[in-house]
Amino acid sequence: MPVTSTRLNPGETIVLATHNKGKVPEIAALVEPFGIKVVSAGELGLPEPEETALTFTGNAELKARAAAAAANLPALADDSGLAVTALDGAPGIYSARWAGPTKDFGMAMKKVERELADAEDRSAAFVSALSLAWPDGRIVTVEGRCPGTLTFPARGANGFGYDPIFVPEGHDKTFGEMDKEAKYAISHRTLAFKQLVAKVFA
Amino acid sequence: MPVTSTRLNPGETIVLATHNKGKVPEIAALVEPFGIKVVSAGELGLPEPEETALTFTGNAELKARAAAAAANLPALADDSGLAVTALDGAPGIYSARWAGPTKDFGMAMKKVERELADAEDRSAAFVSALSLAWPDGRIVTVEGRCPGTLTFPARGANGFGYDPIFVPEGHDKTFGEMDKEAKYAISHRTLAFKQLVAKVFA
Repeated sequence: MPVTSTRLNPGETIVLATHNKGKVPEIAALVEPFGIKVVSAGELGLPEPEETALTFTGNAELKARAAAAAANLPALADDSGLAVTALDGAPGIYSARWAGPTKDFGMAMKKVERELADAEDRSAAFVSALSLAWPDGRIVTVEGRCPGTLTFPARGANGFGYDPIFVPEGHDKTFGEMDKEAKYAISHRTLAFKQLVAKVFA
Repeated sequence: MPVTSTRLNPGETIVLATHNKGKVPEIAALVEPFGIKVVSAGELGLPEPEETALTFTGNAELKARAAAAAANLPALADDSGLAVTALDGAPGIYSARWAGPTKDFGMAMKKVERELADAEDRSAAFVSALSLAWPDGRIVTVEGRCPGTLTFPARGANGFGYDPIFVPEGHDKTFGEMDKEAKYAISHRTLAFKQLVAKVFA
């Protein structure tokens, strides 16, 4: 296999470069059907790098490279959030941080509503970046975008984060009102994963 | 898109052509990360076709075509089993039937052991066929094989079916002794799924 290959083969082990316990089984479920074994950065006691990049792809790459180097294994990282056009892309890479240490997304959604008070443009997009890095420097990074419109007040109890104020293009319901299957059918995450599969598993 | 395309796109709904309730969530988990929505043949009240073909791929195709025609949706079917060299491929497509209506695989493994009493060749393979058929006649069928050796008595309580008597090539443990991740890393099912992904999702 040439050193420029970015394939993962059945039987290989990768690190999931996240310390978010909720994300580990979710990302593991994506790669395990391809025969990939996973360990999490938390299980290995890897340090959690500071997310100092200014883009979703930059942060995903930074996390993937740090975990790959520390574990000497290929590492998969994700970074995602909501980019609001009238706010020049905010909250963007700070989407989780706007909810504070208690993950109060009710508060974060109110903050978006306040910031948009005088704005006519309610367009926004959910963005998901995935990056797979190898210890020798190889890296594959993809990004999926789901465009839509923000609506207030929030509607629906499904999903998480900003889902209840986001109406995806071509739909009437918010992500918070859609069931998981309907959301995954069009989500930024699905679009990113499909690209990753084409580059890594196909 | 040309009519000869065999791609499934995010948002499409397919039928899982199985009446085995245990298989439904397992197969659904494979395709849902690609944004595919699933309904099961059982939920739709589709008839269960007789599996009259003589090969794994033949039976998978027969089940996929029948469900696609009845539901007017793309349909995914699987057929899998253990093929023992010295038994000319038996139990093969009859792997489940050898266990009888009570799914007594202890009994089925004893039967394999008895049939092999005078045989020197203990080689065997687990085989998994997957077939995706469209109502208009398009069809994609793939087959994965995991070669190995049979061992008696049965060892290990993991997995199901004939797993406790099957030692995959290059390993010492039976599938019944391996954890799920180690088994999926080399399994016939993983190999078939990877081929399907390359043809349908990539």
